[in-house]
Parts: sequence; structure tokens; C-alpha cells
Amino acid sequence: MNSFSSNARAAGSIEFGKVVIYGVGLIGGSFALALKSARAAGEVVGFGRRLASLAEACELGIIDRAGVNPAHELADADLVLAATPVGQMPAIFGQIAPHIGAHTVVTDGGSTKTDVARAAYAAFGGKIGQFVPAHPVAGTENSGAAAAKSDLFQRRKVVLTPLPENSAATLDRVRRAWRLCGAEICELTPAQHDRVFAAVSHLPHLLAFALVRDLAERPDAPLFFDFAASGFRDFTRIAASHPEMWRDICLANRDALLQEIDAYQHQLHDFKIALQENDGALLERRFAVARHARRTWGERQG
Amino acid sequence: MNSFSSNARAAGSIEFGKVVIYGVGLIGGSFALALKSARAAGEVVGFGRRLASLAEACELGIIDRAGVNPAHELADADLVLAATPVGQMPAIFGQIAPHIGAHTVVTDGGSTKTDVARAAYAAFGGKIGQFVPAHPVAGTENSGAAAAKSDLFQRRKVVLTPLPENSAATLDRVRRAWRLCGAEICELTPAQHDRVFAAVSHLPHLLAFALVRDLAERPDAPLFFDFAASGFRDFTRIAASHPEMWRDICLANRDALLQEIDAYQHQLHDFKIALQENDGALLERRFAVARHARRTWGERQG
Repeated sequence: MNSFSSNARAAGSIEFGKVVIYGVGLIGGSFALALKSARAAGEVVGFGRRLASLAEACELGIIDRAGVNPAHELADADLVLAATPVGQMPAIFGQIAPHIGAHTVVTDGGSTKTDVARAAYAAFGGKIGQFVPAHPVAGTENSGAAAAKSDLFQRRKVVLTPLPENSAATLDRVRRAWRLCGAEICELTPAQHDRVFAAVSHLPHLLAFALVRDLAERPDAPLFFDFAASGFRDFTRIAASHPEMWRDICLANRDALLQEIDAYQHQLHDFKIALQENDGALLERRFAVARHARRTWGERQG
Repeated sequence: MNSFSSNARAAGSIEFGKVVIYGVGLIGGSFALALKSARAAGEVVGFGRRLASLAEACELGIIDRAGVNPAHELADADLVLAATPVGQMPAIFGQIAPHIGAHTVVTDGGSTKTDVARAAYAAFGGKIGQFVPAHPVAGTENSGAAAAKSDLFQRRKVVLTPLPENSAATLDRVRRAWRLCGAEICELTPAQHDRVFAAVSHLPHLLAFALVRDLAERPDAPLFFDFAASGFRDFTRIAASHPEMWRDICLANRDALLQEIDAYQHQLHDFKIALQENDGALLERRFAVARHARRTWGERQG
């Protein structure tokens, strides 16, 4: 990759000469691969907690080298992505903020945005305008550098939650970076974002984890798993997701998620009452509402 | 299909000369197509509530003709499949039982077994030995004759819940029919069956219906659906399932399903408390239990 990087840089077509990735897992690794594949990144430098992950990312051509000292790597960075579990963002931002150059733009890949924005204000201070929060809606239940792929963001939404301090030019740079990865850009406020994703992503993950744990801890668990089939497979796919990442998401979006759990508990209670009362007509009407909404959504997704 | 049927029957290789299907939807239609594809069925006659469905099933080559009068079709039938929503089984069995021949074997495709066995005892009386309850674990969220396909049961489990009155020969005939469809045969008691499927199938369907309905009835529903992505897609696929079929399943397996709802409500409550108390370590441990169980299961499925 080094010779490609040098050539590409020499050709003058590189939009982001130096890219620094914190967390070379599924999101960070795919971001790097996508920018490389678009010939939009010069050198890619990776930081991470575990040397083995950085070595693997080098091996896979995701990063060109591992960074050692943020103070040496960030002043001349064009683009920085923080792509760790959101619980680590405050510490990561604390390492990044003092060292970025005046032209550096920073974005992130966290699944929650209110807490990330709060952490960014605390760390970046007067440089907050250089940070544009982002959520690439492209997770899978797999994680780690080995799961990264250059087309992960193709035709996927990336939700930006711009801050009032972001200049038009900074916003454009960050939009451009995600577009180069193939993503479709949307914008929400951090609060809107967190409310929406609590409902359509965080709650379903929690529900799937809860179902599988409920079965796994039964003395006769193997009997149940033996007969689980394709409905179970799809329903619980997200229960194979990364525990630390989802712990952080749940804690970071606690208030919105607790509201969604409450709403869901009421909904489930309503279904239970209808069943207890043998009210088949009511159950069928509710199932039909869900089916219609799900089919309409599915058709729109294409 | 008629010339094929006559030829094949003439060749003497047909194991089930006359097959009668009640309900030519996904399950009944696929059963007919699978037996035809295995050259194991002679003539296939279909009964159903709606003439349009029977016409479609003829058009698609699923059945050779529509039956009109059960009294004329069942005495010489070798194999009968009842594949309607389980709520219709008592009435269907009532139509079938008086007319079957001494050599006719009857099976069903219902997703619940205690209620089906109970309905069969009531209808078949002294002929109960000719009925072997079965549950092909091969549903999809699609339904109707158009969704039927000859390989639906390939390598899928069919759970038989044999009755004490079934002779070894009758059991063998029914096992053979399902095996000819490509299925792997398992056996459980009706009560075991219903307990297991309440947990791994009926509850997940109810949970998915509840999630989608909860979103669909919000005033700002489009905002949520706009940002729903692949996790939501898989988690809610089963919420596009047939409302009447699932109404019947829920009512038929009410006691076991209510127990599962209770267990799940406790489980969800536990997760909520951990979240309210900000207990990240506990959440992560629970997520890890689920992830491990789900990955282990997924790897075994291949």
C-alpha cells in the first residue's frame, strides 16, 4: 500500500493526504479501506488499544502503519475518525484535541450522538468547530479489523448531527469523506438521532440479547436451540453483536432507551392481555397493522 | 401434469397414488410440489376456502384439480395433508374423518400440536390411529400458493408428535412422505413441542409484531422507519407474517406462550434495572452470555 499511497499522493488527486483512525475495527477499518479504494486517502495511520489489532490491520492493508504518539501524528492529519466503542470517546477525544492542526477535521463512527457531542465539547473546547459527529448506519454483528470491507458504507446512511460551531467548509469536508465511502448523508440533531436509534436499533438489540439469554440460561437450553429455525435466526442475529460496544451504546443512550423499553413493555402487556382474554380479533388486527407497516417498509428498502 | 401422473402411476413407482391437500398455501403447496418433484405422488387434489387460491394452485401445477366433495375424494386417498391455519383444523378434520379409507394416512402442517391432537381425537374417533400430527419447521413470512416451492422442506426439520394409537406402519408411511419432501424427521410429544416452539418461534413472532406496531402507531412513524436498517430488517422480518395464521397459533398455544411472555417480561425487567442502575458490567456479562449462545448456535447451523 505504501507505493500506492506515494504514487497517488504524487499525482495530486488525494483529497485527504493523511488520515488517522482511532479504533481499527469494523467501522474504522472499513472507512480506511473505502477511502483507499476511492484513492482519496494518502497515508492511513491507526491507533488502538491492542497491538495485535493494529498488526492485523497493517497485515490486511487497512492502515499503512500504527501510530505511537498522537502528538506526532495529528498536527498534519487532514482527517481523523474516532471509531471506538462510544464509552472510550471521551478519552480518545482528550488525546486528539490538543494536537490537531488548524486544517484537521475530525468525525466519529459512534452509534449515539448526544453523549459523543457532549464529550467532544469537553475535550475540544475552542476547537469544537473542527469536529462533526457522525453515525454510519452500517453495523453488523461482526466486529474487528478482519470484518472490515471497503464497501461497508455503500448506499448506507451516515447520519451527521452537525454542531452550531461547524463551518460550512468543515461540514463539507466531512460530508465529502463519508460520500467517498459510498454513503448517503442525512442530518438530524443529536437528540433526534438518539431518540430514533433507541427505537429502531438499540431496543431491538436489547430485546434480542434478552431472548437469547433467557433461553441460554435454562437447564434444558439445548432442547430449545435444537428446534430454533430461520425465524429465530434472523430475529436473534443482532444478539451476536459485540457486548462491550452495546454496553456502551445502552449506557450512552440510557434515557432514550429506557423510554423505549417502557413503551415496549406497555405494548407487550397489551398483547398479553389480548391473549389472556382470548381476543383473536384484536390480536389479528394488531398483527395486521405490524405486517402492513413491515411490508411497506420492506418494499421501500427494495 | 395429468399425463405425467398417469405415466408415473402406470410405471408403478408412485408411493402415494392419490394425495389430498387441504389448504394450498405455502406449506400445502410446497408439500404437493415436493412429492411431485420426487415422483412420489400420483394425482394431487386440493381443497380450500377460496376458489381463486385453488385456481392459482392448478395454474402453478401444484394440484391437478380442485376437490368439490370430500365424500368423493377421500376413500381412495393414500395421503391427506391438512395445511390450513390451525384454527381451521377442527372443521377440516370433521370433513375428512368420516370419508377416509382404511389405508388412508393423514398428517398436518400446523405449528402447534396439543390443540391439533385434541381436535383430531374429537373428529377421528376410532380412526385416530390414521392421523400422525406433524409440524414442518419451514415457514417464511410469505404465504399463499405463489410462495410454494418444491424444496421448501429440504434439510428442514419436521417434528412428528406421534399418538399412542399410531401403528408402526402408519408412522412409517407419514415419515416416508415427509422424507420424500427432503425433510429430517424428529419426534417430540405434543406438550414438549408446544413448549419449545412457544419459546423459539411463537414468542419471537409476538415480540416482532409488538415492536413494529409500536413504531407504526406513532404520529412520527415515518421518521423512525426512515432510519431503520439491517438489524431492524432481520429482527422484524417475521412481523410480516400472516396475521390469521399467527392469531391461530397464539390462541392454540396460549398457555405455553403466556408462560414464555412472563419469563420474557422478567428478563426484560432485569435488563431495564441494570440499565437504570448504570450497571455496565452486568449488562456486558448478560450480552456476552447471549452472544456466546447465539454464535455457538449459528456455527452449529452451518
